[in-house]
Amino acid sequence: MRIGIIGSGAVGRALATGLARHGHETRIGTRKDEVDGLPVGTPSEVAAEADLVFIAVQGAAAVEVAGGLAGELTGKVVVDTTNPLEFSSGSPGLFVGHTDSLGERVQRAAPRAEVVKGYNTVGNELMVDPDLPGGPPTMFIAGDSERAKAMVADLLGATGWEVADLGGIEASRYLEAMCVAWVRAVRDSGNPHQAFKLLGR
Amino acid sequence: MRIGIIGSGAVGRALATGLARHGHETRIGTRKDEVDGLPVGTPSEVAAEADLVFIAVQGAAAVEVAGGLAGELTGKVVVDTTNPLEFSSGSPGLFVGHTDSLGERVQRAAPRAEVVKGYNTVGNELMVDPDLPGGPPTMFIAGDSERAKAMVADLLGATGWEVADLGGIEASRYLEAMCVAWVRAVRDSGNPHQAFKLLGR
Repeated sequence: MRIGIIGSGAVGRALATGLARHGHETRIGTRKDEVDGLPVGTPSEVAAEADLVFIAVQGAAAVEVAGGLAGELTGKVVVDTTNPLEFSSGSPGLFVGHTDSLGERVQRAAPRAEVVKGYNTVGNELMVDPDLPGGPPTMFIAGDSERAKAMVADLLGATGWEVADLGGIEASRYLEAMCVAWVRAVRDSGNPHQAFKLLGR
Repeated sequence: MRIGIIGSGAVGRALATGLARHGHETRIGTRKDEVDGLPVGTPSEVAAEADLVFIAVQGAAAVEVAGGLAGELTGKVVVDTTNPLEFSSGSPGLFVGHTDSLGERVQRAAPRAEVVKGYNTVGNELMVDPDLPGGPPTMFIAGDSERAKAMVADLLGATGWEVADLGGIEASRYLEAMCVAWVRAVRDSGNPHQAFKLLGR
């Protein structure tokens, strides 16, 4: 395929190099003359001539870039790889996203409890002793109390789980969204005996 | 440990049964007299006497339940397992959450393109031919065009990925949140060579 990649940053270069290895004709759409010796063109010509287009620009620029190329992208398959990441609070968050979660509301409702968000990204059949090929799966947790997270992590470790700590209770926003991803994936496959694992820890 | 579980639904029963198998003294806090023969008590007494409390009620009730038990939960470690799931649109979503995403904005900016959200839940080092123990990892995708998703899924399958299709482009909301989970987990461990896998497919 002719694969056009809009954006010359690390993501764009990784896709151009990696997909070329698989025999695809890749080209980066950029205003630069040169990107690590990779084939380049203007965003407009690259989008127009591609069978498949990746948008791999900074999240803050994605809408403007897509809108500017709307004509060239008509009828094309476009992969949007961008994320509305923002770091203004010091911790990663989303600039298109929400600013509250049920986990935060629960913590506010019981302000002197040490709330840990967890056990929410898997179905109840697998919450204790998940026996899955390729396991153990990963339970994602979040909370403001290190003591509380250590206690919950110990319990998880003793009952068949790896643990990934995502930070403060505000990370419930991302954990609750992961639940929807799980629900939708399970619905898609019809098999509720599924759980996330973070490979490569 | 004495583990109190507030909620007698499937999640509460699974936790009570599973954690009792590990030698913990589990009790369900409920207004019911009987829950499958498991030890029960009122929510207030179960919360007050537990070393660790799970909130395992419906998402819509979580804040009220936590607020009602705020006194008993003071100084306790509380695991919030709840999710603000709602199904009013026919597809799973969140009632505390957002109603837009960068993926949807990109699709609106190029309305005649067939946008697939993907390649956004992993770092660029692993986008093509991710070579991870326990792999292949799972790329989560979403989009309104079945043709476009099939094309992207073929490319992913040929370059080292399993694919989970989460539905329409609105599922970008959950995929973009998963990116934040990935960023936070990677930051926690210091190792960017990590990727999600959905075990048990």
